[in-house]
Parts: sequence; structure tokens; C-alpha cells
Amino acid sequence: MNTHHSENSLRIPTSAHPRIVIIGGGFAGVQLAQKLKGKPFQVVLLDRHNYHTFQPLLYQVATAGLEPDSIAGPLRKLIERSPNFYFRLAEVLAIRAEEHLVETKLGVLHYDYLVIANGSKTNYFGNEEAFGKAFPLKQIPQALDLRSYILQNFEKAVITENADDLQSLMNFIVVGGGPTGVEVSGALGELKKHVLPHDYPELDFRKMNIYLMEGAGRLLNGMSEKSGNKALEYLKRFDVNVKLNTLVKSFDGQQAVLNTGEKILARTVVWAAGVKGNIIQGLPKAAVERDRIVVDVYNKVIDTDNVFAIGDIAVMKSEDYPNGHPMLAPVAMQQGSLLAQNFLHLLRGKPLKAFRYLDKGSMATIGRNKAVVDLPKGLHFGGLFAWFVWMFVHLVSIIGFRSKLVVLSNWIWNYFTYDRGTRLIIRPYIPKGGEKVPTNEPEKVL
Amino acid sequence: MNTHHSENSLRIPTSAHPRIVIIGGGFAGVQLAQKLKGKPFQVVLLDRHNYHTFQPLLYQVATAGLEPDSIAGPLRKLIERSPNFYFRLAEVLAIRAEEHLVETKLGVLHYDYLVIANGSKTNYFGNEEAFGKAFPLKQIPQALDLRSYILQNFEKAVITENADDLQSLMNFIVVGGGPTGVEVSGALGELKKHVLPHDYPELDFRKMNIYLMEGAGRLLNGMSEKSGNKALEYLKRFDVNVKLNTLVKSFDGQQAVLNTGEKILARTVVWAAGVKGNIIQGLPKAAVERDRIVVDVYNKVIDTDNVFAIGDIAVMKSEDYPNGHPMLAPVAMQQGSLLAQNFLHLLRGKPLKAFRYLDKGSMATIGRNKAVVDLPKGLHFGGLFAWFVWMFVHLVSIIGFRSKLVVLSNWIWNYFTYDRGTRLIIRPYIPKGGEKVPTNEPEKVL
Repeated sequence: MNTHHSENSLRIPTSAHPRIVIIGGGFAGVQLAQKLKGKPFQVVLLDRHNYHTFQPLLYQVATAGLEPDSIAGPLRKLIERSPNFYFRLAEVLAIRAEEHLVETKLGVLHYDYLVIANGSKTNYFGNEEAFGKAFPLKQIPQALDLRSYILQNFEKAVITENADDLQSLMNFIVVGGGPTGVEVSGALGELKKHVLPHDYPELDFRKMNIYLMEGAGRLLNGMSEKSGNKALEYLKRFDVNVKLNTLVKSFDGQQAVLNTGEKILARTVVWAAGVKGNIIQGLPKAAVERDRIVVDVYNKVIDTDNVFAIGDIAVMKSEDYPNGHPMLAPVAMQQGSLLAQNFLHLLRGKPLKAFRYLDKGSMATIGRNKAVVDLPKGLHFGGLFAWFVWMFVHLVSIIGFRSKLVVLSNWIWNYFTYDRGTRLIIRPYIPKGGEKVPTNEPEKVL
Repeated sequence: MNTHHSENSLRIPTSAHPRIVIIGGGFAGVQLAQKLKGKPFQVVLLDRHNYHTFQPLLYQVATAGLEPDSIAGPLRKLIERSPNFYFRLAEVLAIRAEEHLVETKLGVLHYDYLVIANGSKTNYFGNEEAFGKAFPLKQIPQALDLRSYILQNFEKAVITENADDLQSLMNFIVVGGGPTGVEVSGALGELKKHVLPHDYPELDFRKMNIYLMEGAGRLLNGMSEKSGNKALEYLKRFDVNVKLNTLVKSFDGQQAVLNTGEKILARTVVWAAGVKGNIIQGLPKAAVERDRIVVDVYNKVIDTDNVFAIGDIAVMKSEDYPNGHPMLAPVAMQQGSLLAQNFLHLLRGKPLKAFRYLDKGSMATIGRNKAVVDLPKGLHFGGLFAWFVWMFVHLVSIIGFRSKLVVLSNWIWNYFTYDRGTRLIIRPYIPKGGEKVPTNEPEKVL
């Protein structure tokens, strides 16, 4: 099929099979690539990172519970020993849909089919300026930065004399009451209760405040009201100060200003308030809507012939989901899986199968022994059993047997020892624009 | 004892007990601090990092075999629940021996006894300029940088057309045939043989060359000649090209020039040729000799009353060790342990005990199933049994039960799967002064 030139800057050889280029090694892209293994296609996977990130557990890396290898799998390993598979560590710059080309930082590549699966990024809702010092939590380096910063702040707190400085170092604000926000604040609550007081006996941990700010009137908006209420109740037990109907208007690295006018001293703000699609230039105008790509029931991008979009980036409107499906891993994996089938149907001239999301339920954990689970058909439960279900489902979903083992053994360790093994400041985090250092007089001597 | 001021910038409270300030949380410092737990001293440990590094396994972090949490233990955790113990994350700038003060980046601290245990750093023998682009291997961030760089180079190799570029990306030079150099090159040999060919089926791994350069006429100079020869034989089996009597004169990031005039294209040079003490300003002139601190048989720094030095930084000359003891973990730990006893003797007015190094032997591993062990009294053995001994001794020596478990389970996994789980480029490494990018024409399209 590729009868163009015999050389290109990405060094993908010519092939008798059609070339499928996949942008992004997240849940959707990896699922698709794995299902295409051994099929009559040449598959090229492009990603900025050489690993897949299991995002649902990123917050545990940020709170010193797991190391990156637990939740990251090398992409080459995940799709190993497949003769027609090529991975390239390359950032995509643009698409030239009419020429069937993707432009990458390494050069230009021709495709027969293009699949956009590059997911979502943090959404500051136009307030990038106001929240430049908040921590996003979408990638492993961000989680490691947050881990370092939390620990650096406590190391500073032990030498701080000024009461306001101390309070700002020991206050943590989480913005957004979805699953990530709930999970991060629960994990911070556990650190406060079980881990940090042993490390810092000099500090009074009654002064450590964890705030969770949610703009709506309830938590876990994507789940049942019952689960939202339960999560609120559990978070209170972990000493998290939940403020509903509350927005953070700005944060300057020292204090946050709320919509109520209230000001809270805090060095650390975690931004978990929303995500938006990573839009790549060059798509038809009609295909981009509110930072997502509009697709038909086969995940084909509208106004294109051979471009598909799957996962968080794609919005497929239907009667059941008028605004598209929720941006969740199961949707991405199911779309990747079906698209692999549909590529075979395309090849054989058979009609394509329309996507139908099989909702198996949703869940969130709050911390030790506490989670909430919604099943389809209005069933929901919480507490210890929900927590086991949450752990089981996450373990099963982590790609790669090694990662499953590492996560499981870390969880067992953390549970029984009340320990968090990775509270290491490997690369200290330096806030953008520098930061205020506690101003003790340098020459006072004890 | 501390009847000075009641406030200081490091916020160490006054105490009825003498204050021992320890600089450095390596083997020597941690051992001393642990042995002083519960004793009538106030102990202040200062370190730039908040973790102890188990340096003997750093090379496994650099070669994608272990994550940092396997070999790093949070210092606060290691000496937890000790009422008189204080840790401060602080870099030491200078000592004012006459005033009994240490100057740190956080302020000044008074001591009754000072223990310098800040170890050694990479020694370029005055050639910092010539080797600025080589990788040292003394700290975890350096090991992570090397891991990233190795993987980045292979990601580049798959898209490189130019034969010289390709060769420089696939050549690895290790400088220094001591235990670290032998272990790094053995681990690279294993990557070549068992791991990388699966990840990069597009590359011809016969082109991957691993060079080990040693200035002397044999490997493992600190060990028996028999063990040196065996290591050489084992390295050959792992496809390592050992060059004895060979020095690297310079390295510019693209190629290394040898003393023979030979030039070798290589992007990656690992510098394992030597270490020197981290000398802090302010010591008596006579106490500093060739970047180490001269101590008496009690590890007391000469020309001082209350300053001690233990571990790599200290040089204690004796009949058996005219140039001081070898810079090894067992020496550091034995000195730390004895000094803790001697502090008690000091307190009780009893005579101090002189240090005597109990040499339990030394060892080095080359890779899978291969190690060499020297026991005292001229006994040595190699091969599979030596490899088990090596693993056992290292596991037992790692501080912290969690780290032992993590290392053991990683080793079991790596052994049976021929896998290296952590081949992740979390933070891409950018060589100082930028780097040459392969110059494929950007617009050629396949």
C-alpha cells in the first residue's frame, strides 16, 4: 500500500499492509495496538513518553504510596514481539488530513489510517495565569513533583518560626470533588493521620488542614448522590475539610482566594477540577467542539475518510450520552478494542460495528477501608467491601503482570505497616518564579 | 550542656544532654545515629537529601533493574521514634571549629561534638573539564539520568540513518575497572543480551559495544588477582570489551580519546574511575590530606578536640593500612558503630577504644549467575555460588525491611523473566550544552 518513497525520517519500512498510525499510548491506544497484534496491518504508535501511564493511581505516586514503575509500563514491552509494530518516541505537531500525513518533531509520516488517542490534559477553564502555581495531576513527572513538594514543605515547617508561614506550609487545598480530588484528599488525610506524625514529631499535626473545594453542591458528580454523600462522610473521618459550592478564584503560591472572598494560606494547591482534550492542529473545523473531536458511532472523525479518534479526546453524541461518554478508562479501552475489529471489517469490506458503551459501574476510594461503588441499574455500596472491589478492579486493570505485582505488594505493605515507602525527595521541586524562603535570622545560635 | 541561646534558625531545642551533630546520612552516619538511639545525647543529623542511599546497588537503578525506592530509605524513617533525634534537610557550608559551630544553608548550629560523615564524591583527577559530559554514579538523580539517557539513545538509534551517529548511540564506555565499573559494564552486557533486542527488533545488536577501560594492568585492583582475572573472563562472556592499561584522555559527548590515540565514537561514558572526599571548609590545615580528613585511632580529627570523621571521608593510617582503610561500606559502618560506644565512654570518663577494621572480605558481581568473592586469609571463589553470596550479603546490608523486600522481589522477577521493569524515561536527560540531533531531512515522506 505504501508506494511512496522508500525513506523517511521516522525510518518506518514500507509494508504490503495498510499503515495505521496511532497517536498516544494511553488506555485507548494501547488496547487498539494490542488487539491489532498479528493482524494484517502495519501499526505505528507515537507517544511523547516511552511508557503507558495508569492514571487512576497517579495520586498514589503523588502521596508517596507507589513508585513510578508501579503504574508505568514501557510501551515497547507492552506490545513486544509483534513483527508489524513500530513505536516512535515522537511528539505530534500537526495533521495534514488531505495529504494523509502526520507531522512529528522527528519528521513527517504517511498513514493509511490515523487514530487519534492522545487523551486529555488539565483544564484551567481559561485561568492558566491564576493557577500556574497549582499542581496538575495527569502525568508521572507532575506526581513526582507534588510528592517532593509535600515533603519539602514539611522539612521547611520544622524550621519555621513565623506562624503564617507555618500554616501555609501545612495547609493543602485540593480543587475539584471528582474521583481524583476525592482520592488525593483522602490520601493526604491518611498521611496526616498515620504517616507524617511519626516523621515529624516536632510538628503539631492538628495544624495540618486539608481542604477539598467543589463548585457543585455535592461530591462525585458523575456518580450517584448516595455515593457522593458517603464519600463526604468518609472524608470527614479522614479529617478533610470539604467545602461544597466553593470555587477557588486565584492562587499565587502563598494563598488561595475563594469565591466567597475567604483567603486560605497554602503553599500547595492540587488542581483536579477538570480536563480537556489535547487538540492537534489540522483537523476539519466541524470536527472540533469544545476541545474534543466529534466522531460518529464508529469513532470516525466527522468530515474525514480515514481518521479515527478514541478515548477521552473523542466525543460521540448519542441519545444515552448527549454530551458524549464519560472520560473514563473503560470507555477508552472498549473503543480501542472495537476499532481493532472494525479495521478488520474495513479490510474485508464488511460493514462496521457501531460503538455501544457497556457501563460496568464506577467507583472511587477515599482511603484505608473506604470506597464507594456504583453499579449499573442503581445499585451502590460503600465501606470495606467497596474498598476491596476498588482494589481488585484496579489491580486487574493495570497493564502488565509485573506492575500488578508491584502495586499489590506495595498495598499490602502500606496497609499493614501504616507506612509510605517512597517519601523521598529525589529531585526537589522549585516552584515557577522561585519561592519565599522562611526568613529566620541566619546568625542566631543555640 | 547547651546553655547558649534558646532560639536558632534550625530550631533545635535546648537539651540537658550534649549535642552530637552528624554531617551526612550515609552508612557511617546512619549507623552512628541508630546506635545512639535512646542514649543520653541530643543527636542532630544533617543531610542534603532526605534519604539514605544504598550506593552498592546504584548501578542497578542506572540500568533499569531497580527503582529508587529499592535503594533509598527516608532518613526520618530510619531513625524514627527516638525522642532526642533531629533530622534537618540542610547543606553544610563550613565548620567554625574554634567556636564549635557548623554553618548550614539554613543557619548556624552549635555542637558539643561534631561528626563528619559526608562521604566521597566522583574524582575526575583534575580533569573536570574533559569529563563534564561523562556520567558520575554516586547519587540517585545521576543514576536516573543515566537510565534515561541509555534509553533515549536507543530511541534515537532506531531513527538514525547516519552510520557514525548510529555507532556513537550504541557504544558505551565505562571508565574504571573497580567494582562499580565491573558491575555497570556487566549490567550493560545483560541489557544487550537479554533485554534490549526484544524492545528494539529493528536494531542490529552486534553493533552495540560495551567498553571497560582500566588504567592498571588488571581489574578489581582492591581484590585478589585471581578474582580480577575471573571478572575479566566473566565480562568477556557478557560481551564486554575490556581494555587494560588504557586511559580515557577526554570525552566531548560524541567521542572519547584514549591514551593510545585511539578514538571511540560514543554518546555515553560512565565515570567510575575514582572518588575523593567531600572536604568542608574550616578544618585545621594539618587535618586535610589529599581530599580526606586525617583521624587518629578513635576517628578524632587531628588538631581538634571534639570533631570526629568516619567513613569514606576519614583516613586513619596504620601499619596494616598505611594509606587508610578502603573506602567501603563495612569500614564506615564499623567506625560509626564504634564511635557510638566511644561517645558513651567519653561521657562516663572511660578510656576510648581504638578502631580495628574487621575485614570480612570483598566481592563484586558481573551479572546473572556470576560474581567473585575474596575472603580474608586468601580464600576466593567465583561463579554461581559467589553470585548467591553477593546477593545475600547485599540484601542483608540494605537498611530497612521494606527495601530488602522490594530488592529481592525485583531480583526474582528480573532473573526469571529476563526483564528490566523500569526502562522508563520519566525525565529525559539533556546533556550539558545541548546535543547533536540526528540530522534526517525533515520532509522526506514514506
